[in-house]
Amino acid sequence: MDATDLSTLRSRVKAFAAERNWERFHDPKNLVMALTSEVGELTELFQWLTPQEGVEAMRDPKRGEAIRDEMADVLYYVLRLSDVLDVDLERALSEKLEKNKARYPAVITRGSV
Amino acid sequence: MDATDLSTLRSRVKAFAAERNWERFHDPKNLVMALTSEVGELTELFQWLTPQEGVEAMRDPKRGEAIRDEMADVLYYVLRLSDVLDVDLERALSEKLEKNKARYPAVITRGSV
Amino acid sequence: MDATDLSTLRSRVKAFAAERNWERFHDPKNLVMALTSEVGELTELFQWLTPQEGVEAMRDPKRGEAIRDEMADVLYYVLRLSDVLDVDLERALSEKLEKNKARYPAVITRGSV
Amino acid sequence: MDATDLSTLRSRVKAFAAERNWERFHDPKNLVMALTSEVGELTELFQWLTPQEGVEAMRDPKRGEAIRDEMADVLYYVLRLSDVLDVDLERALSEKLEKNKARYPAVITRGSV
Repeated sequence: MDATDLSTLRSRVKAFAAERNWERFHDPKNLVMALTSEVGELTELFQWLTPQEGVEAMRDPKRGEAIRDEMADVLYYVLRLSDVLDVDLERALSEKLEKNKARYPAVITRGSV
Repeated sequence: MDATDLSTLRSRVKAFAAERNWERFHDPKNLVMALTSEVGELTELFQWLTPQEGVEAMRDPKRGEAIRDEMADVLYYVLRLSDVLDVDLERALSEKLEKNKARYPAVITRGSV
Repeated sequence: MDATDLSTLRSRVKAFAAERNWERFHDPKNLVMALTSEVGELTELFQWLTPQEGVEAMRDPKRGEAIRDEMADVLYYVLRLSDVLDVDLERALSEKLEKNKARYPAVITRGSV
Repeated sequence: MDATDLSTLRSRVKAFAAERNWERFHDPKNLVMALTSEVGELTELFQWLTPQEGVEAMRDPKRGEAIRDEMADVLYYVLRLSDVLDVDLERALSEKLEKNKARYPAVITRGSV
């Protein structure tokens, strides 16, 4: 899996929302709020764990499934938001990485001895 | 753009973090917290806008760039989290959509008259 | 009601946590995450409402009770965090208001004609 | 300090907002979003710390002041929200504690031998 590009995924979630007549709810402010509640649910799954328990969180099948579901929900709303704001998410990520490369130069040269 | 699949993007942000020696900070709990602060920054850009101003938020070049940057940061941390937890994000999204299809049947049949 | 000061409320929630042996979970990072998930739950109650529906949200008894519960949870975790960090919350608020008074001068003089 | 009750604090922050003509922005949805961004800023101060560094976070005067400021901002918006929704925050907290007492019985009897 993981072979589909972001614009295809964006179309997929747009269709999913349209088929349920949810587009009327999906204005940017509402979608940002929805993103907040999904990140809140993801946070709830980690908040009382130690860092090490966090690292091993996927080992518990039930918790693992809940984590995957919440991460999917976060991605879903980022994609919906990129659709309603017409943001090219891949380009936004590339450009942000370029900015951060200038701010935070690499300390490790890959391939260095 | 938007032609790259999620696993390639995930590798890209992993390399970005590794080159800066940031992987030691990127345990799941910390990444979930980082996701929270990025969603918080995105929220700040919309909180005092009316719904209509939210819809038009990208028209202001400076605000538009800030929104794109924050959305990129959110995607960045979702990808980092999927890497450290070894979650196939595209599969997680597909499976979540399937679950939601059962919970929320489509009300609009595409192609219906 | 609303006649109790913050330090008394802080002691009350501290005792509540202690009686359940929860203090071992209540380190600052965990409490900040718990605050995030409660704000997420509060957000979920408002995210699909119009601004006007938001204003009238307490009229629905069931939703109103849920909102009160989530606001209580947010306050609970702010108080717990102030306890473990030993922050005088009332003083912090007063000092922050003073800073903001300098940054944002009053535009309305109360009592002006 | 910490001797003022919540309804007095609520009046204080209401006056602060009114004097700046900010009440028109303070509808419930917007205030919930503002709460999110403040919790995001608080989170940012803790996200890369180890749990132990989190416990000791107030020792660094600059970080300590930032933490106090963000906690004050969170309290500010909870108080503003309680005002616009006319929620008695102290009563909400008491009632939520009562509900939780039923759900999570105390395991430690204070004064027990």
